[in-house]
Amino acid sequence: MKKLLFSVSFLALVPFFAFSETKGSFDFMFLNALGSSIALIFALILAVGILKKSPGTERMQEISKYIQEGAMAYLKQQYKIVGLFFILLFIILGFIAWILPLFVKGKPWLSGFVPFAFITGGFFSGLSGFIGMKVATKANCRTAQAASESLNSGLRVAFNSGTVMGMVVVGLGLLDISLWWILLRYVFMPLGIGIETIDEIPPIMITFGMGASSMALFARLGGGIYTKAADVGADLVGKVEAGIPEDDPRNPATIADNVGDNVGDVAGMGADLYESYVGSIIATMALGSIAALSLAGNEGDILKYIQLPAIIGVVGVICSIIGAFFVKAKDDASQKTLLAALRAGVYSSTVLIAIASFFIVWGLLGLKALGLWAAIMAGLIAGNVIGYFTEYFTSDNYRPTQNLAKTSLTGPATIIIGGLSLGMMSTAIPVITVVISMVCSYYFVGGGMMGLYGIGLAAVGMLSTLGITLATDAYGPVADNAGGIAEMAGLPAEVRKRTDALDSLGNTTAATGKGFAIGSAALTALALLAEYGNKIFEFKSLLPANSALISGNEILANILNPMILIGIFFGAVLPFVFSSMSMGAVGRAAQSMVEEVRRQFKEKPGIMDGKDKPDYARCVQISTIGAQKEMLVPSLLAIFSPIIIGIVFGPGTVLGLLAGATCSGFVLAVMMANAGGAWDNAKKYIEGGQFGGKKSDAHKAAVVGDTVGDPFKDTSGPCINILIKLMSMVSIVFVGTCIGLNTAIIKFLENLFR
Amino acid sequence: MKKLLFSVSFLALVPFFAFSETKGSFDFMFLNALGSSIALIFALILAVGILKKSPGTERMQEISKYIQEGAMAYLKQQYKIVGLFFILLFIILGFIAWILPLFVKGKPWLSGFVPFAFITGGFFSGLSGFIGMKVATKANCRTAQAASESLNSGLRVAFNSGTVMGMVVVGLGLLDISLWWILLRYVFMPLGIGIETIDEIPPIMITFGMGASSMALFARLGGGIYTKAADVGADLVGKVEAGIPEDDPRNPATIADNVGDNVGDVAGMGADLYESYVGSIIATMALGSIAALSLAGNEGDILKYIQLPAIIGVVGVICSIIGAFFVKAKDDASQKTLLAALRAGVYSSTVLIAIASFFIVWGLLGLKALGLWAAIMAGLIAGNVIGYFTEYFTSDNYRPTQNLAKTSLTGPATIIIGGLSLGMMSTAIPVITVVISMVCSYYFVGGGMMGLYGIGLAAVGMLSTLGITLATDAYGPVADNAGGIAEMAGLPAEVRKRTDALDSLGNTTAATGKGFAIGSAALTALALLAEYGNKIFEFKSLLPANSALISGNEILANILNPMILIGIFFGAVLPFVFSSMSMGAVGRAAQSMVEEVRRQFKEKPGIMDGKDKPDYARCVQISTIGAQKEMLVPSLLAIFSPIIIGIVFGPGTVLGLLAGATCSGFVLAVMMANAGGAWDNAKKYIEGGQFGGKKSDAHKAAVVGDTVGDPFKDTSGPCINILIKLMSMVSIVFVGTCIGLNTAIIKFLENLFR
Repeated sequence: MKKLLFSVSFLALVPFFAFSETKGSFDFMFLNALGSSIALIFALILAVGILKKSPGTERMQEISKYIQEGAMAYLKQQYKIVGLFFILLFIILGFIAWILPLFVKGKPWLSGFVPFAFITGGFFSGLSGFIGMKVATKANCRTAQAASESLNSGLRVAFNSGTVMGMVVVGLGLLDISLWWILLRYVFMPLGIGIETIDEIPPIMITFGMGASSMALFARLGGGIYTKAADVGADLVGKVEAGIPEDDPRNPATIADNVGDNVGDVAGMGADLYESYVGSIIATMALGSIAALSLAGNEGDILKYIQLPAIIGVVGVICSIIGAFFVKAKDDASQKTLLAALRAGVYSSTVLIAIASFFIVWGLLGLKALGLWAAIMAGLIAGNVIGYFTEYFTSDNYRPTQNLAKTSLTGPATIIIGGLSLGMMSTAIPVITVVISMVCSYYFVGGGMMGLYGIGLAAVGMLSTLGITLATDAYGPVADNAGGIAEMAGLPAEVRKRTDALDSLGNTTAATGKGFAIGSAALTALALLAEYGNKIFEFKSLLPANSALISGNEILANILNPMILIGIFFGAVLPFVFSSMSMGAVGRAAQSMVEEVRRQFKEKPGIMDGKDKPDYARCVQISTIGAQKEMLVPSLLAIFSPIIIGIVFGPGTVLGLLAGATCSGFVLAVMMANAGGAWDNAKKYIEGGQFGGKKSDAHKAAVVGDTVGDPFKDTSGPCINILIKLMSMVSIVFVGTCIGLNTAIIKFLENLFR
Repeated sequence: MKKLLFSVSFLALVPFFAFSETKGSFDFMFLNALGSSIALIFALILAVGILKKSPGTERMQEISKYIQEGAMAYLKQQYKIVGLFFILLFIILGFIAWILPLFVKGKPWLSGFVPFAFITGGFFSGLSGFIGMKVATKANCRTAQAASESLNSGLRVAFNSGTVMGMVVVGLGLLDISLWWILLRYVFMPLGIGIETIDEIPPIMITFGMGASSMALFARLGGGIYTKAADVGADLVGKVEAGIPEDDPRNPATIADNVGDNVGDVAGMGADLYESYVGSIIATMALGSIAALSLAGNEGDILKYIQLPAIIGVVGVICSIIGAFFVKAKDDASQKTLLAALRAGVYSSTVLIAIASFFIVWGLLGLKALGLWAAIMAGLIAGNVIGYFTEYFTSDNYRPTQNLAKTSLTGPATIIIGGLSLGMMSTAIPVITVVISMVCSYYFVGGGMMGLYGIGLAAVGMLSTLGITLATDAYGPVADNAGGIAEMAGLPAEVRKRTDALDSLGNTTAATGKGFAIGSAALTALALLAEYGNKIFEFKSLLPANSALISGNEILANILNPMILIGIFFGAVLPFVFSSMSMGAVGRAAQSMVEEVRRQFKEKPGIMDGKDKPDYARCVQISTIGAQKEMLVPSLLAIFSPIIIGIVFGPGTVLGLLAGATCSGFVLAVMMANAGGAWDNAKKYIEGGQFGGKKSDAHKAAVVGDTVGDPFKDTSGPCINILIKLMSMVSIVFVGTCIGLNTAIIKFLENLFR
């Protein structure tokens, strides 16, 4: 009750802040910095609380230490390679921003801040994942220990660890935004270095979005390859061939498997959602400045439109913190009540944000602007709808997954066909939902540039609850790890049962979280598409004189123009090629893991009797090397294809590319995520005793489905979300370069054939 | 040698015809009717030749009769249901074309000829499949008998049966086109009934394209569901569970399986390619009339542009017939020389067409128009490139499929992941090839409306060799059936070996054929997209006054306009939903087949010892009913979704829909076809003795892959090709209706909220 009062009184501050400043030109970015600090301090408090908990028996600590070391070794290796990539790109960007203008006349192709912004984005994105993982690897044994006390204690530790991650992501996101803002506006603008008006700030910020996305892609892809190679390797040899249970300490790949949960599902997801969060806010800020200019408002108005997305972010932080207090479970809780406990947190935050953002929009921009609030709501609601249907299609409480489980009776082929079919069918509703929320958010605010800003706000609205939805999402791998430690350390069966309950719940909330990530990716990509259009306009002086892309004050990307149409073709195919690469990578990395585990079983027959110790470190190393090696090519494809296509075919084709990639990538990502989730839960459903239960032929078939689903849902699927935004941001950052070089090529060819 | 001389002298006639008429206004459609007759007469001669061959032993004739009866029973049932659909649509079209104009003022939404054109398209498409299948079911036992004489004899009978199909498809296609042309131009135009100028003719013809596509979709989908349900059912229970070889007469589903080859791979493919062929020609004719008008030429010129695609078709007929004579094999032929024999036919036709079409374009439109010839070449070359890479990705002579076979060593999960990854990767080159051929054919002729006409000509060029490529494609199922009959009738092993060689070759040529079908589908769909744009323009008086779609003389479908963008989203998702439905349909139909075969084995244990006869008819019936039941919903989705989206969201969204569906459908179709083909051949590769050979675990895993691939490559994949064109044609036919109703809705809403 006390907490509730505290919450409400805190919320009351928000409209106060808002109203009190409508007339002035208070810079809300200071509020933003404050919100960021609150999030980070809250995370720190929670983290300290977790560390104070008992880490359990010596054996548990030992296992946890193995996992920590493996995870750190992986990250170290990853940051080394990614660091090289960032340095390389820093040099390229620096060359374009600083050296080229000395030789090429006219508007510079890149702002001079871009190389630095790129680096900070990557740094903070990586840091989010790093901190989240550090805490998660500390929390795993503590969750297991707490679960041996009571279910609620276990839930609290795991959930707090997830909350740390959620708060770090949003906190660092807001921090990066406010730091750059303050730096640019209050240091460089007054000095007149490289920037003149505030509406130039958001486009520079897009660059750190690009940095964050690059880092996120590496983290998600590398982590995804790592975790699935280890998982598939552990399962195929351990479970299927040797017939030992999951997380059995005799399995050499079991530590690597648990490390994988951390580097893939924690560090990877952290970097991923940092990217989503920051991407949605800065893309909308950039559109806000143009939308406000189109209204011909004064500087104060422009400021408000630019800053509204960030303010919504701050409100989200506060509401998420309040919501986190609502999460608790009774000790005799069933899975249903556990879910209700987590949902209580998410829903209360959602309602609070809905109310608070109403007052904020009203206070900031007046009653006329309430369409913007409706746009935010459109996103918030769409996120929940997609989340619900993701759960419907992937949870074994509903018909689709139950029916899928039944197809395992006729063998692996039918469950594969069934899962692919289910995944494809499940794409319809998210597409329709995104389309509706897009149309609504566009027209609620009157269409035009403002409408595109509305679409961006819908994405921001959808992600405004990220602090808490990510908490419910990131708690899953911690519970999963706790289960592994309980098994390996030989804790009583009831502890394992409790961690299993927590873990299984994590699968459901992860599905919902994925819905948000995918939906917001589509909306953000659309906002970025609009921003790309604006950027073309900005560089129109570089375009050939007869370009069909410009018509008066508008960019025309007519799909009846073959150059646009081929862009859509390229865009449609890229997610497929990318997924092919990432799935192939998982396959190859898993293959070497399978061979290694087989080798160990063969060379050390004592492992199975417990007489010999398996070489965990070797498996960790194999996954690490495999992931690093396989991560590079697909990432470079994502980053360089829009640049190359832009240089060769021009900006119109890139517009088509982005539209095509967003649509086809969205559909493919949903399909992969849901097919994978459904296979996973169909297997669990059978393990729960249906259709013959464990060890039946049906179960074997379901394991095949689950194994196919692993790279779907944890590697390729989530990476596509990043892919579509990263390509958009790369296009935006390199727009000047592409137009400049493309025009030069056209001129050269014209002279050649004259 | 005599034949060669004959060929060359025949070809010499073509430029003669062309040159002699440049100045006059000779109606080349009479030439078209002549070409059609040549094709049909050639088909008749071949068919009579096949019937004269010995049908083999009594047992062989008996089995062949079972297959014939099953196939006919299926077609009868199918035509009943499809007939009802056609009557229903005839009524709807009739209502719009004949009744509505009495009440709605202004330009009628549909031409009065449309309902009849719709019916004839469906009729001829169905007839193509019917005749092809009738001959194929007669040829199967005769091929088996001929193969017992020599390999070359077997090849000749099977190939001639395929050639009959090829000739019937192109012959009936040209027949339908020339019949309607002659009817409209020489009967209705002089009488002044419903038509005034010749440029109105091609758009009416699009309607029979829609009829043909509807029929093709039903035939492909129904046939595909039938054949795969029977195949999967026969394999899963017979091969895997009971351990009896393929085509064993003890398997109750074996006749259904062989029937399936005929109704799916022959009748379905015939209808499908009829649709592709006719679709490409009439779409290009329609663009030709507009392109010619944009040149402001006289009527004679317009005529030439309209008729050029049809003339290319006639040349294709003649060159295909010549090419067919080049196909023969020595008796000690290896698979390689067999392939060379078939290729000799295809390549000689290709070269002849390339030469002949050069003279035709030159003679008809002069040297300035040689860009049009280049466009035709762009299509012809692109078809061969896509065909080559399809083979590269799916044949076990190359690395990709060999590597895929290797993944079976680690079980079914890895070969599934590997196959999906291979399929996704294989989409890149076809996309790039289509894009290049599109850009080339557009710019070779100078861009603009003429450029779009060029894209259409590329599709026509790609399909101009259809007479012979279809022959090499349609001969496969005949060889397959012959093998089945040889097995069931207990012919000597060497006969089976020969039919196997023919069959395996058929898989390779089928892959190439699929490349042509998919590539041409993309190009045709693009041509139809352009035609749809023109149609919107035609109905611009019905559009709301402030429509953003019209700008001067152009249709503007700006992808930055959300209404266009949501269309792309809808378009991207539709092929997925459609594939989900069709794959689910196969799964369900296969399920009931599995249960039926299990039931028979259980209730009649004597079957396995040969003491009891399996009930073949019951399995045939189950497949028939299953296919019919499952065929309807996905087909209706394809036909009605563009209409509904058009009415609700307007024509701009439909433009986006068509662009999105073409791109996403193209990629998905290639992926499914190639993944399926690669799994099939990986299994065959292992059966050839690699990785443990038959009965090894690797082989079992490969069978799972093959089973998953079946609906991919023979049901969902090929249907998507039809789907994207059918949606385009439906949109074109209903454009007036959609714009009219959409505008009415907008007006109603405006009045409501005023």
